[in-house]
Amino acid sequence: MNQRIEPYRIESEPYYRPVSDEVSLFEAAYARRIPLLLKGPTGCGKTRFVEYMAWRLRKPLVTIACNEDLTASDLVGRYLLDAAGTVWHDGPLTVAVRYGAICYLDEVVEARADTTVVIHPLADDRRMLPIDRLGELLHAHADFELVMSYNPGYQTALKDLKVSTKQRFGALDFQYASFDIETEIVGREAGVDADLASKLVGIAQRSRDLRGRGLDEGISTRMLVRAGALIADGVEPHAACRMALTRPVSDDEDVLDALDGFVDAFFGP
Amino acid sequence: MNQRIEPYRIESEPYYRPVSDEVSLFEAAYARRIPLLLKGPTGCGKTRFVEYMAWRLRKPLVTIACNEDLTASDLVGRYLLDAAGTVWHDGPLTVAVRYGAICYLDEVVEARADTTVVIHPLADDRRMLPIDRLGELLHAHADFELVMSYNPGYQTALKDLKVSTKQRFGALDFQYASFDIETEIVGREAGVDADLASKLVGIAQRSRDLRGRGLDEGISTRMLVRAGALIADGVEPHAACRMALTRPVSDDEDVLDALDGFVDAFFGP
Amino acid sequence: MNQRIEPYRIESEPYYRPVSDEVSLFEAAYARRIPLLLKGPTGCGKTRFVEYMAWRLRKPLVTIACNEDLTASDLVGRYLLDAAGTVWHDGPLTVAVRYGAICYLDEVVEARADTTVVIHPLADDRRMLPIDRLGELLHAHADFELVMSYNPGYQTALKDLKVSTKQRFGALDFQYASFDIETEIVGREAGVDADLASKLVGIAQRSRDLRGRGLDEGISTRMLVRAGALIADGVEPHAACRMALTRPVSDDEDVLDALDGFVDAFFGP
Amino acid sequence: MNQRIEPYRIESEPYYRPVSDEVSLFEAAYARRIPLLLKGPTGCGKTRFVEYMAWRLRKPLVTIACNEDLTASDLVGRYLLDAAGTVWHDGPLTVAVRYGAICYLDEVVEARADTTVVIHPLADDRRMLPIDRLGELLHAHADFELVMSYNPGYQTALKDLKVSTKQRFGALDFQYASFDIETEIVGREAGVDADLASKLVGIAQRSRDLRGRGLDEGISTRMLVRAGALIADGVEPHAACRMALTRPVSDDEDVLDALDGFVDAFFGP
Amino acid sequence: MNQRIEPYRIESEPYYRPVSDEVSLFEAAYARRIPLLLKGPTGCGKTRFVEYMAWRLRKPLVTIACNEDLTASDLVGRYLLDAAGTVWHDGPLTVAVRYGAICYLDEVVEARADTTVVIHPLADDRRMLPIDRLGELLHAHADFELVMSYNPGYQTALKDLKVSTKQRFGALDFQYASFDIETEIVGREAGVDADLASKLVGIAQRSRDLRGRGLDEGISTRMLVRAGALIADGVEPHAACRMALTRPVSDDEDVLDALDGFVDAFFGP
Amino acid sequence: MNQRIEPYRIESEPYYRPVSDEVSLFEAAYARRIPLLLKGPTGCGKTRFVEYMAWRLRKPLVTIACNEDLTASDLVGRYLLDAAGTVWHDGPLTVAVRYGAICYLDEVVEARADTTVVIHPLADDRRMLPIDRLGELLHAHADFELVMSYNPGYQTALKDLKVSTKQRFGALDFQYASFDIETEIVGREAGVDADLASKLVGIAQRSRDLRGRGLDEGISTRMLVRAGALIADGVEPHAACRMALTRPVSDDEDVLDALDGFVDAFFGP
Repeated sequence: MNQRIEPYRIESEPYYRPVSDEVSLFEAAYARRIPLLLKGPTGCGKTRFVEYMAWRLRKPLVTIACNEDLTASDLVGRYLLDAAGTVWHDGPLTVAVRYGAICYLDEVVEARADTTVVIHPLADDRRMLPIDRLGELLHAHADFELVMSYNPGYQTALKDLKVSTKQRFGALDFQYASFDIETEIVGREAGVDADLASKLVGIAQRSRDLRGRGLDEGISTRMLVRAGALIADGVEPHAACRMALTRPVSDDEDVLDALDGFVDAFFGP
Repeated sequence: MNQRIEPYRIESEPYYRPVSDEVSLFEAAYARRIPLLLKGPTGCGKTRFVEYMAWRLRKPLVTIACNEDLTASDLVGRYLLDAAGTVWHDGPLTVAVRYGAICYLDEVVEARADTTVVIHPLADDRRMLPIDRLGELLHAHADFELVMSYNPGYQTALKDLKVSTKQRFGALDFQYASFDIETEIVGREAGVDADLASKLVGIAQRSRDLRGRGLDEGISTRMLVRAGALIADGVEPHAACRMALTRPVSDDEDVLDALDGFVDAFFGP
Repeated sequence: MNQRIEPYRIESEPYYRPVSDEVSLFEAAYARRIPLLLKGPTGCGKTRFVEYMAWRLRKPLVTIACNEDLTASDLVGRYLLDAAGTVWHDGPLTVAVRYGAICYLDEVVEARADTTVVIHPLADDRRMLPIDRLGELLHAHADFELVMSYNPGYQTALKDLKVSTKQRFGALDFQYASFDIETEIVGREAGVDADLASKLVGIAQRSRDLRGRGLDEGISTRMLVRAGALIADGVEPHAACRMALTRPVSDDEDVLDALDGFVDAFFGP
Repeated sequence: MNQRIEPYRIESEPYYRPVSDEVSLFEAAYARRIPLLLKGPTGCGKTRFVEYMAWRLRKPLVTIACNEDLTASDLVGRYLLDAAGTVWHDGPLTVAVRYGAICYLDEVVEARADTTVVIHPLADDRRMLPIDRLGELLHAHADFELVMSYNPGYQTALKDLKVSTKQRFGALDFQYASFDIETEIVGREAGVDADLASKLVGIAQRSRDLRGRGLDEGISTRMLVRAGALIADGVEPHAACRMALTRPVSDDEDVLDALDGFVDAFFGP
Repeated sequence: MNQRIEPYRIESEPYYRPVSDEVSLFEAAYARRIPLLLKGPTGCGKTRFVEYMAWRLRKPLVTIACNEDLTASDLVGRYLLDAAGTVWHDGPLTVAVRYGAICYLDEVVEARADTTVVIHPLADDRRMLPIDRLGELLHAHADFELVMSYNPGYQTALKDLKVSTKQRFGALDFQYASFDIETEIVGREAGVDADLASKLVGIAQRSRDLRGRGLDEGISTRMLVRAGALIADGVEPHAACRMALTRPVSDDEDVLDALDGFVDAFFGP
Repeated sequence: MNQRIEPYRIESEPYYRPVSDEVSLFEAAYARRIPLLLKGPTGCGKTRFVEYMAWRLRKPLVTIACNEDLTASDLVGRYLLDAAGTVWHDGPLTVAVRYGAICYLDEVVEARADTTVVIHPLADDRRMLPIDRLGELLHAHADFELVMSYNPGYQTALKDLKVSTKQRFGALDFQYASFDIETEIVGREAGVDADLASKLVGIAQRSRDLRGRGLDEGISTRMLVRAGALIADGVEPHAACRMALTRPVSDDEDVLDALDGFVDAFFGP
């Protein structure tokens, strides 16, 4: 294992609470090296799941946050003038392909067409990455796996994956966990008791019903963990919920009133 | 044969199951060096066909995944600062022209105007590539052949090939294989029996009827092979179809219900 | 502490007049390293508050004025040709991450998508910054904290933070101070007596009622301080208000007439 | 004659069948060095005509395929870092101006405004090219001639030559040859007898009536030559026409049915 | 005083005719280093006023003509390859900040968002300029003052200063001078007698009534000075007015007829 | 006189036939160094007039063909890597300013905002050019004069000069010459007798009536000269008019029929 890939290794087991058969399905897909698309809302645990699977499979994890300014060169690499002179510098995708990491393209729908097209020959049975500037046809390391996330509630006619991209991937649906499981997660991660955790989850579940009616997304599990932690540190619950749950998700006064009402319903007015 | 082109040589025969007279027509066009346009939906086997023909004709194959950020320089080449100093670096198109490869422009309709215009003097009887920066008028190697793919269901008024480009090419239509042939392909590639393969093909054929009514494209042969392989590995058929066939192609609940119904029709509810 | 970060240290206590529990909430969020979003109108004291908190927590403060031309490289760093040759140059975000500063992204809603996406892995519990060009996965210094400001009255459908960004932050609402507190602030900062200060605050409060009815924003506390200072220097009050309060905020004659009327109401016609 | 221009010399007489007085008119315009605009549909022989005239006048021919990404520097030249260090590199237009070639701007309507403006001082009686970066006012070689092609069926309000450009040029209209001449051309170039050639021309002429009614352009002479050659090589006529004539020009089923009908009319159903 | 700033010093007193209390208000704002926005139509004397104030205050004046292609680097500086090698080169804004000049951003509304955001930390009480590439937090010289001009008749929804920019500035209104003062100015600057000057001012005043009714702006004082000078040199008055006053401001025949009528009214038909 | 400016000197008197008092008005404006805007249709002689005036005033003439890709650096200059290393290279505007040439910006309405803003400090009484990269405030040579052309029939809401630009210039209207003068010009320049010249002018005048009714511009004087020259060389008049007059100006069949009718009216059917 090359030292270039070492920083991407995950040392300790990340906390991940499976909600269905996603662990075994990921393992089955990985056994066949079928690239995977993780579909689901923001903050529901997709990133944590990939970290967990990378740890479980003992593979390094290279994460790339996609955005519309990410170029193909940002992924594949370029010649750089560094202190030692002109040297080729593998991009993060190339590092993953060459040394056998799981490469995770986060929010891939934000990427430009050229980024997603670059991965096509990696995502079918050719499993290769042409690096034109090096004159190299890089065949993927046997351990290499491609994973992308995207949020179906987000893509529009303007921003959607091309069909020819989607058809190269298998897909796993993600949703927020059930009430009991989410309560367990919040309790464990924030270090609060089940009663407090269940109140926070109750607020979140009500907020998720507002999705599409004033809210783009409901309150995520990650936000609940933060609210719980603040309360555990002694912050008054209404103030903690205001700062950690409600004010980040909306600027609209009516929506904020509704969200504050949910908080009052669980913590008193 | 130059070592620059060696990595592009195809060592072993790719599996390709002819569906009509496409092999002999490709050979006839190649004999006259008529450039070819392969038209058809994604995942129906165009890329595999080109690989097969390159192997059959014993020519190297240079594949270029087109995208809207691909510049003429990306194709033709540029002076690069590499570790050895400033050197000219042939782009993949130039490599193919110079050493006599089949150059395959995948999804050419994604390319910008300048990319497609660059190939014009290669695609008529001049068969030459002006490389202005080298002051070189490169005459194509006698073995050179130009092939492009595109998906007619995709191009819009905004993204279509120019007539002056299309008229420089011959064209071959591709469709999904017939039921029997597709079953044979899925069985062979996934390593499953004819019964299972035929069920998967049945699902795909129904999905293709939804094209234009909620689906941009139906389920492709490539996806069936993956679903079959997962089932062969012991994944429960409904879960395998969910991951490999239905969730990648749509985010729409109604469409997914219809697709799930097709799966139930073949594998039971 | 590295000399690279020294210029960002705040030497003397900035004047800040708390208006609610914002100081203790910031401290609670900082204790958990929850990144913070400061929401509120321009000129109401967000920047001063961050300076005060940085001084109070004895942390350096790296401020970045966001704009639509700010690239990810501007934040993270690049190789530069300087007088000593080619050297890597940490961007201001990297400086803050590496040496443990509070990094304040001012008017973050102006930034491009790639800028905000760059901070995602810093804003969840990974707290890391991948610097691809250095091949470095920088884990944030234990003292590092991320703070962003934005003005909710401003964002449009075109310019808004992505939900996946917002959900990574806690949020604190800011408003103009109450009449008494704002009068105290203006008196202290401009060096004028309470009577004059209260007149200026009265004008500002009336102007804020015009918000959305001809004015994008009312007159800010900062502007009142300047008007007060000019009057303290002997400028005639109407002329001072004209120059410091009314002419900057509008070019519309009707709005200016209304604003001049507010000035007359407090300083006589 | 400089070696820089040698590759642009046309060694052997290109086959060109005059259809009217275009040869003598080109010679008259060349005698006065009036720049020329060749107007006509794609594939009707404009490029071949310029090659023929260059050969006939014993002048080198520099052809530039215009596109919207072609910059003024691409035409005029730039300082390049090549293996020998930094050297000025004449662009193809400058080569033609300096050494007295015919410069042919193919599909000039695709070029950006700056490209066409660059040629203005070359296209009036100043006949000069200012090369600002060299500090050189290059006066055109006495043999230099400027020729551009464009397809009037193509230009739109968005893409048209500026009037100030057009007025600097003389213009020659091109159309497809008459039935007899086109039959002669197809027979000679494809190596087929007059009967087969006339059938192919018959198909093409019918297709040209569909122009504007489903087809952007009819089938060109160049395509007929290819169909003839395939049939001469033993390809079945319907298959040859499918590949070489009909499938390249349309993806529309109704149009393709009509075109197939024309083929059946000449080669039997 | 550094030699870098010397060329920006104004040697002799510019002619400026105050029209109201603008000189003392500028001095009061400068005493508090309140940045100033000069609002008014083109050619009414804003630029001359800043030159006069710079001379009066004995400060160098750095003028920057804003435009939409001006980048933050153009203002702040960059590393340049000059004849002496790679050296840092302060931009004009940095020169002004470092050595204590008045920095005048002319027509600031033309600048891009990033340009105006760069000045934010200079325009509030931080008075600092972060130069990321130098790793320098430049605190403004005690003499530094920021002045911007803009034309309120011009800004549109697309091009307007951001509220957060405007609120950092005090503002002075400028209008064309009164009839008597403008006559005095034209007489003095053009070297013509009061009778001729008053006729020219009469034409200009009438033209200003056409503003918004066919004219974007009326005839400016600067134009009158030029017309006067031409007449003083012996040019026939109608011809001088045609060339210097009317033909520059409109291409519309009706508007030109009206303007010619104003000229006839004062100089006879 | 520096050798950098020598190539811009006009050696022999250009043929120019004055049509009104434009020569003396140009001289009067030049005496006061009032920058000039030459307004008129394409091909009516603006460029030739400037060449004539430059010759008459014994000043070098630097002509810059404006286009939307011309940058401020293209005008002002830049550091270039040339064979001798890194050296500053004055742009054509700087050459003109430094050595006292007439600088002619042809079709200035095509230029981007930044180009035209660059000339503002040159076009008012400051007469200076700030060259930020050299740290030089270049004061214009006493002989320097700025001239721009534009075609009022062309500018649109999108492409027009800014009012603040126009007001810095005097303006001269140009039209096609009268029948007699244009006949004289065509006869002299083409070397044909008055009878033939008058026929050509007759065709052109009729074509100019079609302006706005199918033609963007009528046939210009320059085109008549070319048609005359071709006829003088023995080309049949109808063919010469077709090539030199009618086919360049329109692709519309109805318009071409009308134009051919004008030709027939003068040269017989």
